[in-house]
Amino acid sequence: MGEFDLIARYFKRPARRAALGIGDDCALLQPAPGTQLAISCDMLVQDRHFFAGVSPHSLGHKALAVNLSDLAACGAKPLAFTLALALPEANEPWLAAFAQGLFELADAHDCELIGGDTTAGPLNICITVFGEVPVVDGRSLALLRSGARAGDDLYVSGTLGDARLALNVQQGKLTLPAHLLTAARERLERPTPRVGLGLALRGIASAAIDLSDGLMGDLGHILECSQIGATVQVDRLLQCVACRTKPGSAEIETAINLSEEQWRTLALAGGDDYELLFTASPSQRAAVAHAAQTSRTPVHLVGQINASPGLRLLDAQGRALPAHYASFDHFA
Amino acid sequence: MGEFDLIARYFKRPARRAALGIGDDCALLQPAPGTQLAISCDMLVQDRHFFAGVSPHSLGHKALAVNLSDLAACGAKPLAFTLALALPEANEPWLAAFAQGLFELADAHDCELIGGDTTAGPLNICITVFGEVPVVDGRSLALLRSGARAGDDLYVSGTLGDARLALNVQQGKLTLPAHLLTAARERLERPTPRVGLGLALRGIASAAIDLSDGLMGDLGHILECSQIGATVQVDRLLQCVACRTKPGSAEIETAINLSEEQWRTLALAGGDDYELLFTASPSQRAAVAHAAQTSRTPVHLVGQINASPGLRLLDAQGRALPAHYASFDHFA
Repeated sequence: MGEFDLIARYFKRPARRAALGIGDDCALLQPAPGTQLAISCDMLVQDRHFFAGVSPHSLGHKALAVNLSDLAACGAKPLAFTLALALPEANEPWLAAFAQGLFELADAHDCELIGGDTTAGPLNICITVFGEVPVVDGRSLALLRSGARAGDDLYVSGTLGDARLALNVQQGKLTLPAHLLTAARERLERPTPRVGLGLALRGIASAAIDLSDGLMGDLGHILECSQIGATVQVDRLLQCVACRTKPGSAEIETAINLSEEQWRTLALAGGDDYELLFTASPSQRAAVAHAAQTSRTPVHLVGQINASPGLRLLDAQGRALPAHYASFDHFA
Repeated sequence: MGEFDLIARYFKRPARRAALGIGDDCALLQPAPGTQLAISCDMLVQDRHFFAGVSPHSLGHKALAVNLSDLAACGAKPLAFTLALALPEANEPWLAAFAQGLFELADAHDCELIGGDTTAGPLNICITVFGEVPVVDGRSLALLRSGARAGDDLYVSGTLGDARLALNVQQGKLTLPAHLLTAARERLERPTPRVGLGLALRGIASAAIDLSDGLMGDLGHILECSQIGATVQVDRLLQCVACRTKPGSAEIETAINLSEEQWRTLALAGGDDYELLFTASPSQRAAVAHAAQTSRTPVHLVGQINASPGLRLLDAQGRALPAHYASFDHFA
């Protein structure tokens, strides 16, 4: 099977929204008047972002999901994406499953594939995604990292730590009861981009970021971009750790048998969660609750933004905890 | 050096045209009213698109050049690009030279880096480029592969075959006099995207494509998309082979010592030339000549578009030549 057959068979579909889709030197996209295009790009590499044995269906899902998560953090409505794919070989069953996982998620968000590239090479998946953000009275409604203000509440969506738990099991550092491992692997391999929540938070959240490298590092980006500090209630954050939110959580905690320090690491530096971390004025609490409800995404108030720089971690009694939880860095 | 230091040191620059550049979850681009965004994406992989020993300065140039070449073929004005980079290690001298080669070409085309991704992994460079195409009276001025009509002239810009010659030398299949090899390697490693010509051909050319895989295959895309056929004057095409256009070409031909068949392969299936292949109505001959002159890019009339499907190669006496010259395919 040649390069162009491969594209035609697995990836080419009629353009719906784009003025021109796959099959020319360029795709053509005409953003609606009064909108900005939000653009993000993520590259997934074997043994870094996934393991050799991962299901191609999940991989297709995840490659797009991590990109949609960036649109979510920006409050952008998904429009389209390009896909560049380096493949060791043109393995048809692999390609069919990869394309199916990819397009199932793309269709769920009405996000169309408009172009890309395929080449032979070590497996590498690079997606660039395009979303739409309204500009109202000359002001963009995009959620940025730089908008947090002293006094704002700090929220996190959904649950944390599952992806890191699954990774630890795969690395042989931990064992998990089968039903918990299944749930944790599902979160690692098929993350849910919080697109609906991101859209619902337009005009409500003051800043947002998606949690890909771990909360400490990602919150650090908000603090740096907004030039402020934050206090995190670690006990509240621990309530967000996925397996502690399930029925029978006391038994689960016993079964997993982590130290308090390890639980905190899951919550503070888990990575690969693809939840949204966002800030909003306390005057917006009802609006945040409404956004959570309409998007059917739980949100948790876990801290506050402070004028004084730095990141402070407090326990349930308000005592300071050491803040040494490092986020993932590809070159550290 | 960590991932974020690496980005800050080598790739982050203040946004000029984009509403928001590097440093948030998404970049924000606001296309001018009445324009379409042309989008293209190319992935470069070691041992496929370049060799391990290539200069990082040239590689930075080429990675962007092949993308700008797609904008050129579309008649789009370069605006911005994203860069995803998988690196075996954070080698600072390599990164500095790569960034310099990349930004020199980007600046020459006023095309700004607005986002991307960096990760550890086998060397892989994926660029997605954005250009602007005017829409006039509801009609896009983009040059497409699908616009060729029976009776149109067929043109090629610049010169052909140098990149393939250099590749053949690197593969040990050929030797070249030093000054010819230097020129040929320059074309292989630092191709010139024909952006100015593409812009000048808006409203004049009926169809266009850039020559990346070789003329036979790339012309095949125009024929397929336009549902027509073509006749190529191979003797005219041979006049475009770079080293035959130089002063003293007779001596050069003797020195290189290729068979007539090998010369034809250079012209018809060379690959990596990044010239433009385009069609235009014979009524546009003066306009094509003017576009060539204003963009300071030579163009050569090398054939005609015919209503009957298929690709016919003719020699100087008008005799049919066999049409068996295959283009490059990454999976064939």
